[in-house]
Amino acid sequence: MSTIGPEIERLIQLLAKLPGLGPRSARRAALDLLKKREALMEPLAQAMREAAAAIKTCGICGNLDTASPCALCRDPRRESHLLCVVEDVADLWALERAGVFRGRYHVLGGALSALDGVTPERLNVAALIERCQAGIEEVILAMNATVEGQTTAHYLLDALAATGVKVTRLAHGVPVGGELDYLDEGTLSAAFKARRAL
Amino acid sequence: MSTIGPEIERLIQLLAKLPGLGPRSARRAALDLLKKREALMEPLAQAMREAAAAIKTCGICGNLDTASPCALCRDPRRESHLLCVVEDVADLWALERAGVFRGRYHVLGGALSALDGVTPERLNVAALIERCQAGIEEVILAMNATVEGQTTAHYLLDALAATGVKVTRLAHGVPVGGELDYLDEGTLSAAFKARRAL
Repeated sequence: MSTIGPEIERLIQLLAKLPGLGPRSARRAALDLLKKREALMEPLAQAMREAAAAIKTCGICGNLDTASPCALCRDPRRESHLLCVVEDVADLWALERAGVFRGRYHVLGGALSALDGVTPERLNVAALIERCQAGIEEVILAMNATVEGQTTAHYLLDALAATGVKVTRLAHGVPVGGELDYLDEGTLSAAFKARRAL
Repeated sequence: MSTIGPEIERLIQLLAKLPGLGPRSARRAALDLLKKREALMEPLAQAMREAAAAIKTCGICGNLDTASPCALCRDPRRESHLLCVVEDVADLWALERAGVFRGRYHVLGGALSALDGVTPERLNVAALIERCQAGIEEVILAMNATVEGQTTAHYLLDALAATGVKVTRLAHGVPVGGELDYLDEGTLSAAFKARRAL
């Protein structure tokens, strides 16, 4: 498309690499940025530069923060004997938004996947086992309820057996607000098996 | 959400202002940027800085380019007596991608809207009338087929009457590849009225 200059073309190409933006929405985003140069484009470029310079990966848990150890690992009010293992930083953020967990985290950096060539060595597993040998009482496996997530959880259960630490996983069941009619058989079956007395 | 530092928070807030990104997808995009710092985040920040500095609005047609007049207005191979009026630069890009028009463009910068308070004075109309008085033979109104777009087209038809220029509009009908079953009554009615002999 020769009528767009190389600067805009490059901006569109890079925006299209963001998750959730395809070629069409990247064009819309680029146009919007060009229209709101001072209100949006320059502050966003600045925010990206600042984040790129400031944000580090926590050496203990794998969270992203301006410091390593991160704020969660430094926080003395969080319980150090509870460890929640998640696949990704996004999952950690989701649990923190829900505010349901007051222990420490461990970010694996993905899930085992034969298809994508993700082996245990490529995940943050060795550090997890080390942490479990140093005073952790319970490890909560908060993997996604996908094939890869559950494979990873099984692998970790085996890998952690030698440490003697208690290993739990998140409950499966009907999501709050969910309608039975729209749920798959796997979820309904899990919800039935784990039914509770009232 | 106290566990995300202010740098990431600000990045997410700015990304969420892009069209097509909500709070959730902005978080995903921010995380993706932080993971691909050198491959994506820094090049994107750089591309935005460069585009912000280089891109101008063409003083003749309203297109975005590194120079004013823009490449389309400078191109001697384009027919100068044909003028296609569009609402937005995105529409100009769409027509150029289709490669169906070899004349000049005029970008209005929006469509008339009583709800949004867009009056004729806020659109690039005065310059359009001036251009039509200087050797344009045909003005093609390529507004969107929305209420605002069609209102704008009617307004322009009246405003251009005094210039004596020939005014046309894009055809309405069944989109190529479209199935009648999925089309609204307005489109079907327009397609019937404008039926052609085979």
